[in-house]
Amino acid sequence: MNNNIDIPNGSPFSIHNIPFGVISTRSNEAPRCAVAIGDYAIDLDSLARTGCLDHAGLKPSASEIFAQPNLNRFAALGRQVRREVRENLIRDITKGEIPHGSLHKLVDVKMHLPFRIGGFSDFYCSLEHVHNCSDMTTRASIPENWFYAPSVYNSRVSSIIPSPQPVRRPNGMFYNEDKKPTYGPSQEVDYELEMGVFVSKPIPFGSTLDIKEVEEHIFGFVMLNDWSARDLQVFEMKPLGPFHAKGFGTSISPWVVTMDALEPFRCTPKTVQDPVPPRHLRWPGQNGTFDIRLRADLLRKGMQMNLGTSNLRYLYWTPFQQLAHHASAMCGIGTGDLIGTGTISGDGEDGGGNKTELGCLYEATRGGSRAIRFSDGTSVKYLQDGDEIILSGTCGNASGGGPYLGFGECRGALLPAFGGE
Amino acid sequence: MNNNIDIPNGSPFSIHNIPFGVISTRSNEAPRCAVAIGDYAIDLDSLARTGCLDHAGLKPSASEIFAQPNLNRFAALGRQVRREVRENLIRDITKGEIPHGSLHKLVDVKMHLPFRIGGFSDFYCSLEHVHNCSDMTTRASIPENWFYAPSVYNSRVSSIIPSPQPVRRPNGMFYNEDKKPTYGPSQEVDYELEMGVFVSKPIPFGSTLDIKEVEEHIFGFVMLNDWSARDLQVFEMKPLGPFHAKGFGTSISPWVVTMDALEPFRCTPKTVQDPVPPRHLRWPGQNGTFDIRLRADLLRKGMQMNLGTSNLRYLYWTPFQQLAHHASAMCGIGTGDLIGTGTISGDGEDGGGNKTELGCLYEATRGGSRAIRFSDGTSVKYLQDGDEIILSGTCGNASGGGPYLGFGECRGALLPAFGGE
Repeated sequence: MNNNIDIPNGSPFSIHNIPFGVISTRSNEAPRCAVAIGDYAIDLDSLARTGCLDHAGLKPSASEIFAQPNLNRFAALGRQVRREVRENLIRDITKGEIPHGSLHKLVDVKMHLPFRIGGFSDFYCSLEHVHNCSDMTTRASIPENWFYAPSVYNSRVSSIIPSPQPVRRPNGMFYNEDKKPTYGPSQEVDYELEMGVFVSKPIPFGSTLDIKEVEEHIFGFVMLNDWSARDLQVFEMKPLGPFHAKGFGTSISPWVVTMDALEPFRCTPKTVQDPVPPRHLRWPGQNGTFDIRLRADLLRKGMQMNLGTSNLRYLYWTPFQQLAHHASAMCGIGTGDLIGTGTISGDGEDGGGNKTELGCLYEATRGGSRAIRFSDGTSVKYLQDGDEIILSGTCGNASGGGPYLGFGECRGALLPAFGGE
Repeated sequence: MNNNIDIPNGSPFSIHNIPFGVISTRSNEAPRCAVAIGDYAIDLDSLARTGCLDHAGLKPSASEIFAQPNLNRFAALGRQVRREVRENLIRDITKGEIPHGSLHKLVDVKMHLPFRIGGFSDFYCSLEHVHNCSDMTTRASIPENWFYAPSVYNSRVSSIIPSPQPVRRPNGMFYNEDKKPTYGPSQEVDYELEMGVFVSKPIPFGSTLDIKEVEEHIFGFVMLNDWSARDLQVFEMKPLGPFHAKGFGTSISPWVVTMDALEPFRCTPKTVQDPVPPRHLRWPGQNGTFDIRLRADLLRKGMQMNLGTSNLRYLYWTPFQQLAHHASAMCGIGTGDLIGTGTISGDGEDGGGNKTELGCLYEATRGGSRAIRFSDGTSVKYLQDGDEIILSGTCGNASGGGPYLGFGECRGALLPAFGGE
């Protein structure tokens, strides 16, 4: 057999990528594991039944592991096994040895959540984002604790959804124009440009984690839109932090890009940490983060407008430090747990002195006080019903010269509030 | 057959109770469903196999549902089915018709978490507790939002443990005596006297809940100790709320007391709500809460000391209002999700003007600044390694005159921090 899969130039799902996900198809509605290549999904459940995936490390068997409706069983295996499975797939794809029956066009598959998620924690780790959100102009006004450990809260597992599922504008409590507490549809729905990290090897309740070991516990990365209702957030935030403001939907891109695929894009973080972090957060090596270019676009009435660009390496506290801190108080972290990096902003500007690396509308509109205006006349403060947000991320050079890969889209539209339709 | 089960006077597991839990035994290490009566657990997996539990509503079958390692399948059935199963058990126990082979002494069983828990949210709803924690002396200094909706945060599912499992003193970031950020063992480990509510019928992501329907969604109640590291909490709280301070262990009593068992103890809340709550939180009927007497005891070096008493009906925002508010922004709530009521304090005093209804040491010691002294000379600020906390709750009159029941113990000991042993 020889099935040369055509991989279009600039496809996020290049031969350097091979991201994992969970698909179903019209002819087989059972969710099962897959990888993406070019415009195709390779059905690993089907492929395993041909014997093509046999590997001694896939216990009890490749077919049992990839017939699962999530990647939890696969991710719980050792990193070396997962690496070899991915390398074998790259070899078989390159040789044209993937049977036709295991291929589905991406446009024909339905994507599911890639993991059964037991916990979802969201961080607040971009210095530029925190600075912009602090309503203040000097670094000294960011709370001191922020510089000593990554700030984080537990978020809602139940509201995590795979792109392109829409979210609905929530009803909730907020202060109206007269500063009176009011219950009704949020007037300030926003997006947040984040990445998500899926955990592989668990860290049991009662145990901690040495930061040197942290890479063994990460399966891979996705794009993540932490939809936020700013008016609800202002109302409920004190003293316990965000709840409903972040609980009406969190979108993730459905293909998980593995640590191995990201390895060529390791780099140093943009910012040198000062003060020096506490010992449990000191990264012992080089290249403690990844060079991943990020962007957010708004689709309104058929027009696509760029809201901002950013890069994972801008994060002050890296994903490795985030996970090490998370584990430090023995809370227990399971296979398939999701960690949100927090909004990732930068300090880049265009020629006119306008900031171009802001990861949410709250920053870009200065708390909703100043509309963003696009060249076609569109004016944006917060999101309108029907707006779509598209997040994407890429590594390397799409036009050749070394590996290139992307995360695919994290997309979602905003539905009107109940009672508001 | 006739097995009259002796139920000692004052047993929490009276014939009026019949709480559900998950047990395993030395001869059968598979966790499975059970109820408690007197000093015994009735093994529902074993009982189902005798045909004694047959009920048309137990689909696909009683044996399949009660062989599960958690109560999720049973709790997802309709309330009427669950009520009839409980009533049939009461009838069979009363008639002495429980086969000997389905009985295990409670001292011989190991208790497991009663549910597979998908989400855990913890509230902050006791006016007295909030007042005491606010470091302020007038009601006006409690944040305005607190009076308009129940304050709540997402807590850690992974750190929920069944009594009597111990917890370990966490390491974390705190301000030391010189106000310098420091990483090390928490110096201020506390308990919190709460109750927990387990959800039965789910509320899907994207849906809301009418408060009139809320009782259909509650399986039952447990005691809950929200272990808290106050110094870590002070450090991390701003702006995202508690995380590690509440993530090193949350203990629950393992037997879940059902809504039906609690029905005779319905009552009105202690406090009339002012302002009137927003419409989605207005309880339409009478008796919107329960009269459940609560107490917390400290066991130190063999001495048991009462730390405080309280009552569920003291809560300003009732559990019904908590669940209705939780569902209002469509976050999705699943069968087996756990809701913590938050610390339940009161304003009762002893003859000497000392408050006797404070639900944590933070309140009782005024933030650790004033030790509690017991008559034997014991002085308590925060918890010491080896201390045990025992929470308990009861309804009705133990010495006769109407139904009586209890929750059993929610117990846990504090282990020394890693590196501190």
